[in-house]
Amino acid sequence: MMKKLLLFVLDGLGDRPNPQLNGETPLQAAYRPNLNALVSTGLGGMMFPVRKGLVCGSDTSHLSLLGYDPEKVYTGRGPFEAMGLGIVAEPGDIAFRANFATRSRDGIISDRRAGRDIPESGSLAKKISFSMNGAEFIVKEGVEHRAALVIRGKGLSPEVSDSDPHEQGRAPRKVLPLDDNAKHTADLVNEYLERVRTILDSSPENRDRESKGKPAANELLLRGAGITPRLQPFREKYDLDGACLAGIPLITGIGNLAGLHLLKHPGATGRVDTDYNGKVKAAIRALDSHDFVIVNIKAPDIAGHDGDPLLKRDVIEKIDSALGQTFELSDSVVTCVTGDHSTPCASKEHSGDPVPILFSTSGMRRNNVRQFDEVNCCRSGFNLLSGDVMPMLMQLSDRLEKYGA
Amino acid sequence: MMKKLLLFVLDGLGDRPNPQLNGETPLQAAYRPNLNALVSTGLGGMMFPVRKGLVCGSDTSHLSLLGYDPEKVYTGRGPFEAMGLGIVAEPGDIAFRANFATRSRDGIISDRRAGRDIPESGSLAKKISFSMNGAEFIVKEGVEHRAALVIRGKGLSPEVSDSDPHEQGRAPRKVLPLDDNAKHTADLVNEYLERVRTILDSSPENRDRESKGKPAANELLLRGAGITPRLQPFREKYDLDGACLAGIPLITGIGNLAGLHLLKHPGATGRVDTDYNGKVKAAIRALDSHDFVIVNIKAPDIAGHDGDPLLKRDVIEKIDSALGQTFELSDSVVTCVTGDHSTPCASKEHSGDPVPILFSTSGMRRNNVRQFDEVNCCRSGFNLLSGDVMPMLMQLSDRLEKYGA
Repeated sequence: MMKKLLLFVLDGLGDRPNPQLNGETPLQAAYRPNLNALVSTGLGGMMFPVRKGLVCGSDTSHLSLLGYDPEKVYTGRGPFEAMGLGIVAEPGDIAFRANFATRSRDGIISDRRAGRDIPESGSLAKKISFSMNGAEFIVKEGVEHRAALVIRGKGLSPEVSDSDPHEQGRAPRKVLPLDDNAKHTADLVNEYLERVRTILDSSPENRDRESKGKPAANELLLRGAGITPRLQPFREKYDLDGACLAGIPLITGIGNLAGLHLLKHPGATGRVDTDYNGKVKAAIRALDSHDFVIVNIKAPDIAGHDGDPLLKRDVIEKIDSALGQTFELSDSVVTCVTGDHSTPCASKEHSGDPVPILFSTSGMRRNNVRQFDEVNCCRSGFNLLSGDVMPMLMQLSDRLEKYGA
Repeated sequence: MMKKLLLFVLDGLGDRPNPQLNGETPLQAAYRPNLNALVSTGLGGMMFPVRKGLVCGSDTSHLSLLGYDPEKVYTGRGPFEAMGLGIVAEPGDIAFRANFATRSRDGIISDRRAGRDIPESGSLAKKISFSMNGAEFIVKEGVEHRAALVIRGKGLSPEVSDSDPHEQGRAPRKVLPLDDNAKHTADLVNEYLERVRTILDSSPENRDRESKGKPAANELLLRGAGITPRLQPFREKYDLDGACLAGIPLITGIGNLAGLHLLKHPGATGRVDTDYNGKVKAAIRALDSHDFVIVNIKAPDIAGHDGDPLLKRDVIEKIDSALGQTFELSDSVVTCVTGDHSTPCASKEHSGDPVPILFSTSGMRRNNVRQFDEVNCCRSGFNLLSGDVMPMLMQLSDRLEKYGA
């Protein structure tokens, strides 16, 4: 019987020695009997996301973990930021990163971020989401002034310039086609932006802001156009029926592009208060009807970005406790636990440090790693790149066909 | 004085923890003082055949070990299966995988395997091996219904379709050209198959089978045409006079394509009863007149495919004992011992697990691996791919030219 595959991605798992933890990493400092038992019954090593010395985002890293080479399919931040904001992108969609900005009466951008504090951004985004000239325009607000614009329609091209002048004191730029095929798209975007200006200028939200002395959010500055890539379906690539369980839209967006079945678990919040036990249980239950499940747990990354090593240690302990449920699967499932990148609490940003990884299943080789952390896994001498993870899972589940005779 | 190179490939060496060996691999369980001494005086590490997570055949792996990239030179299983059956293929030969099958009176394939039990396949293969229209047709029987057909001649192309209908109840297909250059080959094969039908239908072997109520082996179904690749001669590639000692025709076939001198040792059977001591001695003696010798010892793979971990341990002990002869070479030879892939006894099939590897010679660096097995070599952190082996041997023998100034 071929085994099934279960891949846990603990977002931002890797860290650096932290003075608040007596020079240990949050993973080292965590009480983690289940992670240690899993690695003791299998292989422990270190994984560089995508390639050595790269500081990866979650998008490029998850693409690579699923076996899609980001160098080939990562078509710019636009489409992935749009997915991250919850726009369910479809292959061929054109996406821009966007800012709400302030345009003064003379048409000059006086504030590229419209004062940053824009609680009205959600209702403004809805007002400037509509269909026009056969294309659908979808705007979704992000944190502060940030937003994304997705354009869905026929014959669209990402080869257009930014409307964002990239500095204050200048007028928004006309969007220009960068090649012959992009003229239609450029015209369409320029006409859309004209209509957006009318809508935003006359919106009650902006009148209200101005009456309070706040800068109006009356311009949508666009930059970094990119096309949503068409990924080879996961089922076609691996002959696996795959599913994805994640609390954050960026990862479900990537799962959607790969053709993974998107699992929902009501307690999976994508925050540190997520229902760890329930999420792991839901993933295990999904293996009844799927061959492969990828689970993203966002909490360690949040604690890293917050610069809170004690919180990061604590969420790792909760994850460890939840992972105890995987032991009974050993005869029928190959389990892999790793991170998508490091988010050291000291820097509060992603780093290029490799992340620990373990593979565990019955009957496989062990390599004498007894503790799952950045130091012990490094000493094992078992090193891989994120692109090696799917082939490793495939071969450990005896699913690979022989190359040769 | 430049050292000579001696490469031992223990076929299917790698394994997984086996319950019959108290959770050790056959290599771990074997008494192996010589392998341990060799690795203690040099470098021990792990090698993935071709690339990580691939499940390799012996053909793709040996090509890679010799420095030929299978992605470039592996032209399909046909030519390599033909070599495996003992047809000494030449570059440009077209080879098919073939089945003896049963064609009923109405021209329909009633049994794609002619009942599997075909003791007459050898004499039938000889009868349908002949020259025709300027081309030579060579058929060699394999196990049960299996066989290979090689066509040697001018202007041949592998771009032709199968005659095998791939299911019972259908007539054999006409072989069709898949591009403009393949018409001659398709015509030739179709005419050959017509003649084969006449020969097989009227053969005493088949009349005898039918009189015994057995299905006639009166059709040769062809599939998977491939061209025998032209490899850059080993001598040209490395400026080495190389030789190959192997008990199985697949490996001598590859050695032949690489232009290696094919060594014969009467006791080398390609089976578990091979003369291990004599084979190692013959390889050492060959170094008097050659710079490089590759030795394939098939026995561990056979034990793996048989699912017999005790036998695998025992043959490894015999190999270890024979390798004791290499110690006196240390000042003049770089010795490498590895496998071509793993064949775990538990699965009885090749797996993608990496294999241990050692390099040993006087004066080289050591990396503190003291035991040659899957666990200790993994912990060394010295990781390579099979394509790295020849460059490592070349550099350890001080034969490589400087890259740069």
